[in-house]
Amino acid sequence: MTEHGGWPIGFTGYTGRGGMRADGDDISIVVSDRPTTSAAMFTRSRFAAPSVRLSRRHTAARRFRAVVTLAQNANVATGRRGEENTAEVVRRTAALLGVAEEEVLIGATGVIGRPLPMETIRAHFDALPAPAPAGGAAGAAGGVGGRFTADPEAVARAMMTTDTRPKTHTRTVGPARITAVAKGVGMLEPNMATMLAYLFTDAAVEPEELDRALRAAVDRSFNCLSVDTDTSTSDTVAVLANGAAGPVDPGEFAAALADVCLDLTLQMARDGEGATKLLTVSVDGARDGAQARRVAKAVVNSPLVKTAVHGADPNWGRVLMAVGKNTEETDIDPERVVVRFGDLPVYPEEPEGTLLEEVTALLRRDEVTIRVSLGIADGAATVYGCDLSAGYVRVNADYTS
Amino acid sequence: MTEHGGWPIGFTGYTGRGGMRADGDDISIVVSDRPTTSAAMFTRSRFAAPSVRLSRRHTAARRFRAVVTLAQNANVATGRRGEENTAEVVRRTAALLGVAEEEVLIGATGVIGRPLPMETIRAHFDALPAPAPAGGAAGAAGGVGGRFTADPEAVARAMMTTDTRPKTHTRTVGPARITAVAKGVGMLEPNMATMLAYLFTDAAVEPEELDRALRAAVDRSFNCLSVDTDTSTSDTVAVLANGAAGPVDPGEFAAALADVCLDLTLQMARDGEGATKLLTVSVDGARDGAQARRVAKAVVNSPLVKTAVHGADPNWGRVLMAVGKNTEETDIDPERVVVRFGDLPVYPEEPEGTLLEEVTALLRRDEVTIRVSLGIADGAATVYGCDLSAGYVRVNADYTS
Repeated sequence: MTEHGGWPIGFTGYTGRGGMRADGDDISIVVSDRPTTSAAMFTRSRFAAPSVRLSRRHTAARRFRAVVTLAQNANVATGRRGEENTAEVVRRTAALLGVAEEEVLIGATGVIGRPLPMETIRAHFDALPAPAPAGGAAGAAGGVGGRFTADPEAVARAMMTTDTRPKTHTRTVGPARITAVAKGVGMLEPNMATMLAYLFTDAAVEPEELDRALRAAVDRSFNCLSVDTDTSTSDTVAVLANGAAGPVDPGEFAAALADVCLDLTLQMARDGEGATKLLTVSVDGARDGAQARRVAKAVVNSPLVKTAVHGADPNWGRVLMAVGKNTEETDIDPERVVVRFGDLPVYPEEPEGTLLEEVTALLRRDEVTIRVSLGIADGAATVYGCDLSAGYVRVNADYTS
Repeated sequence: MTEHGGWPIGFTGYTGRGGMRADGDDISIVVSDRPTTSAAMFTRSRFAAPSVRLSRRHTAARRFRAVVTLAQNANVATGRRGEENTAEVVRRTAALLGVAEEEVLIGATGVIGRPLPMETIRAHFDALPAPAPAGGAAGAAGGVGGRFTADPEAVARAMMTTDTRPKTHTRTVGPARITAVAKGVGMLEPNMATMLAYLFTDAAVEPEELDRALRAAVDRSFNCLSVDTDTSTSDTVAVLANGAAGPVDPGEFAAALADVCLDLTLQMARDGEGATKLLTVSVDGARDGAQARRVAKAVVNSPLVKTAVHGADPNWGRVLMAVGKNTEETDIDPERVVVRFGDLPVYPEEPEGTLLEEVTALLRRDEVTIRVSLGIADGAATVYGCDLSAGYVRVNADYTS
């Protein structure tokens, strides 16, 4: 199989209509034409989706060949029927592609607590020629409503729920390529993993190395992202490496994987529900990295900080409030804390005149960085989020999502 | 001294203008004409206001005679100058009323990180006849801009920031009366105490009894309130008992105090920034009361639940998401969870037809109750909050508060 557009060698995409989205594709698949080494991480929610529970079982083998995603319905809290429906989608996907069921990872995202529309989903699969050769051929299924696609963006688009933009990223590492597709804009404070983010590479990577690289990358990217403090039942991040391009330097590969994850994280934050600004919060001088992250999360999650950023209000008092709100951080001394907006100091030296104007101008930009130095030790962390706008309320109050 | 309007015997109120509010009174005082027994609880924020730190020191004596409040400026994160200004306001208040400085509790609420306008505050106190007899006489200071008042609502109004309504409550217990004034609508997830709530009573109560009654009442009321997960630097709740009406039954007094605190809590939740609905979340069947409260807080704080309630969207899936998001609650089993909106079951039996219409109608009311049964043991808790509207964003993005 030849390389298609943005996919690494041996991978291809597919999108089709399962009847969950009023208009447009809502089933997507990415498949490798040869075996892979893979690694995956999932939500730790107590209400993990059937798709997460099934995929977690399949992860043990570390050899995913295909990732199938249903959008607009998370199929969560749907009882035994939800589990059976999940298994059926996996079975049909495996049959379509000619791979084992254990080689299929399934993701689902959208409304919680509603059964999948299995009649239209079955009709979609029934209309496809099955079994097709693994990876299929571009355009092969075009006549029956679905289509194989060389364009990762088409897959990312079919995965969207309240996302306003498809999220993809491609970069090379040595002779290989890493291509990622992702979705996620709300119900988004990942814990261990985040929303749906799939990374495909034709690099040859050892299983342990792949696992380690994924965990390190996720820890610095998706796990540092919060749009609204809510944790999805469906968070999934997976990487499939099929080796088609041969081996790469492990360090370079890990760094490239981290870059791709961070890029997707920033895309998610920028596209946060109702967001008009990317908000980055960096904390240094903490007791350790964990404390730095807790404090940074408190700031990036504070509705009062988020609304102030939205209104370009240079309200550093709210940043201090958020830094102080965790009553268990007894070593944080208000006398030693320094706050900066961008590189401009705002506390303890209150900005006035020209400096205050510069601070306000900085807050009007579409990327805002808040820096907090705690003055305790060397712990540091950076987290990502967005402002809170009336658009967030509109998106979440006016539609069932 | 005679009883004034809504105040218990021996208490009176005062309001005046210190130049913090563009228009209207912003300094308020309530004073007892005789010694009191008192108890108080304060924010546990690491950035506690100078007013909180000074009042906390004064609390040791348990004999507050007067409570002075500055509105529109919390005087937090204002360095040594902020501490000196706080001490000066207490000194001037004590001199005005003829009481000891240690008998004055000071509260301040409003913007963080800006110095107090001491010139106008000093001008306010300089214009008053001092020292006046403790409690003063109604109307005595009317000619110089401030006035003593028999109306608790006037004091509550002078304490307001983004509150849209003054918050007071009066009830009798035996021969005595409890009158409370409070403020608080945002930066509001109390931890140990909340915003500014002052309770005055002419009941004679032993110090330990008063302290115990206050802690119990706060635990079931203010500590169960969350508007936006942000914790104020200024939270204060205090009760002053001057004994003028004689002794009351301790059990009845504690119950009455709890009733007053709960009433103020509901007033705060209803008047939450941008709120259009009171949201009550009750959890039962938990491992213990603490777990019930954690889960209830997760639901009442979820932006996605709050926006769904705002939009009257019967989205029980978001309730399940919030119940499941604390990954450390490993004994919560999705199979045993039951969710009701009001008394109407919505999970695991999905409502359809007429029942679904009833659920939606219920969500359109201005008071919504969500009940979650965990099916583990007997732990229960009820917490209070409000919906999240575009009004919250407007209030907090468009003004420095």
